[in-house]
Amino acid sequence: LNSPLVECVPNFAEGRDPARIEALLAAIGTVPHSTVLHVTSDTDHNRTVITFAGPPRSVLESAVRVARRASEIIDLRTADGVHPRLGALDVLPFVPLDGSTLQDCVELAHEAGHRIWHETGVPVYFYEAAALRPDRRKLEDVRRGEFELLRTAVLTDKAKHPDIGGPELHPTAGAVIVGARKFLIAYNVNLRTDDLSIARNIARSIRTSSGGLPAVKALGLSLASRGLVQVSMNLTDFETTPLDIVFSEIVRLAKQHGVEVEESELIGLAPRKAIEMAAARFLKLKDFDTERVIENRLASTEYVRNNR
Amino acid sequence: LNSPLVECVPNFAEGRDPARIEALLAAIGTVPHSTVLHVTSDTDHNRTVITFAGPPRSVLESAVRVARRASEIIDLRTADGVHPRLGALDVLPFVPLDGSTLQDCVELAHEAGHRIWHETGVPVYFYEAAALRPDRRKLEDVRRGEFELLRTAVLTDKAKHPDIGGPELHPTAGAVIVGARKFLIAYNVNLRTDDLSIARNIARSIRTSSGGLPAVKALGLSLASRGLVQVSMNLTDFETTPLDIVFSEIVRLAKQHGVEVEESELIGLAPRKAIEMAAARFLKLKDFDTERVIENRLASTEYVRNNR
Repeated sequence: LNSPLVECVPNFAEGRDPARIEALLAAIGTVPHSTVLHVTSDTDHNRTVITFAGPPRSVLESAVRVARRASEIIDLRTADGVHPRLGALDVLPFVPLDGSTLQDCVELAHEAGHRIWHETGVPVYFYEAAALRPDRRKLEDVRRGEFELLRTAVLTDKAKHPDIGGPELHPTAGAVIVGARKFLIAYNVNLRTDDLSIARNIARSIRTSSGGLPAVKALGLSLASRGLVQVSMNLTDFETTPLDIVFSEIVRLAKQHGVEVEESELIGLAPRKAIEMAAARFLKLKDFDTERVIENRLASTEYVRNNR
Repeated sequence: LNSPLVECVPNFAEGRDPARIEALLAAIGTVPHSTVLHVTSDTDHNRTVITFAGPPRSVLESAVRVARRASEIIDLRTADGVHPRLGALDVLPFVPLDGSTLQDCVELAHEAGHRIWHETGVPVYFYEAAALRPDRRKLEDVRRGEFELLRTAVLTDKAKHPDIGGPELHPTAGAVIVGARKFLIAYNVNLRTDDLSIARNIARSIRTSSGGLPAVKALGLSLASRGLVQVSMNLTDFETTPLDIVFSEIVRLAKQHGVEVEESELIGLAPRKAIEMAAARFLKLKDFDTERVIENRLASTEYVRNNR
């Protein structure tokens, strides 16, 4: 298995009914090679986030099937929750993994959007890298007003029309916001001090929004039970700001405060490329690429042999 | 990858002439199922290392064919380079991969050695796990004196006779050193100086044989064309002495000489575990294992699905 891989992270406006969540998982799992990696449901949000992955055509097929299933079993007129939502299947991002690019995911998102409209009658907006209009790049801009306001707004305001289908929203399933984005790594660095102000100070120094490293969101938190503090981060583009840069910069800043780094941790999974990049960059490896790893090289040779 | 696989990593005393290197690759590739994974040629070393793999019988056949081709096109009387060499095809190790053992590779090495002598007239020494005498287990012991000294030594010193064939070396192709061993990472660290004594000094400090790090062989070499020097290494057990330890120790020792590390390089391939270990250790990653890498998790999920 070394065909290109894509991840997909659909968000649904249903986080309470186990039978419905099971039906959504089943719709994804009926496609060969689509593999569910993680599920989170939240009752207050009334929202379920499913992470699945596989070869691009499998992921596309699962995405269309689960969009249809969501439109059949989730009714936005009764689906209340504190989390904003525009659709039964609310957000559908495609994320490149090994062997695929963001551009591949943009194309996959567009194909998914067309199929969802034509096969389920639910209109589609495109966001982030898949956006067709600059004012629709940010998810929060597309979703503003949510189902209740947008379903009337589209009747009179052409600027609110979906990118595909409609212009009226689906009466019970709303619209799907389909996109392509890079992999987000949840990454924490723990410091050998209980002084929260140091973690907050470092978080401020490194986060993009206060002029730090690009593609980094960071907070300082206290790990009271361990007597440590933590710089808790989302890395939204590990190719722009790789793990080793983040780690080394925090080591450097901590040293300025006279503090050592205890350890770092990945929350959930990281792409192979992020790990290989970190190793290659720390080692200053010349001409490294993923095919220098024997298992990767053998798997892709085998893939070529089996598919020619 | 269900059938047993073996890797073979022939080292040739030719790193400059593309036509000859192409001829060596062609000799390997004429055998069905033998797959070339990687080629590295170095002008200063005047050396090419080809990594190929396949089912044992295919790999054996390719090894004999490329030994013959090397003896036809490489002439050691004119093949100069900074890397020590005894043969046109200098070293021929067989390495177990999925489904094969070191003992399988010992048998394959012995069969290859017999065929090379009988079919090409180039005598053979056996080393490492394939050694027939304890004083020939180490490659550097077998190769000591190189082509120029050994071809006269064998005339008078019976202890220097090849294990198969000879006793005279082949007049232009020398002898082939055939062996079986575990996966070896060929890893070099290049220093931003042209002072060869510094590379030699660091090599001496880190190599096992002079009391340095375990499972490390190291030489100091000059990369004259680039104005750099190199600590050229074989890491014979990357789990005992991981890449990050080797790299960091050389950085530290170079700093004592007032020298910076320019880069490092993998010659050929490295196992996934070696790369992941380096990243995890540099990042001080807590609870890291290979299943934290999304592509690995997917592959093992796929494997479970296909085999239940």
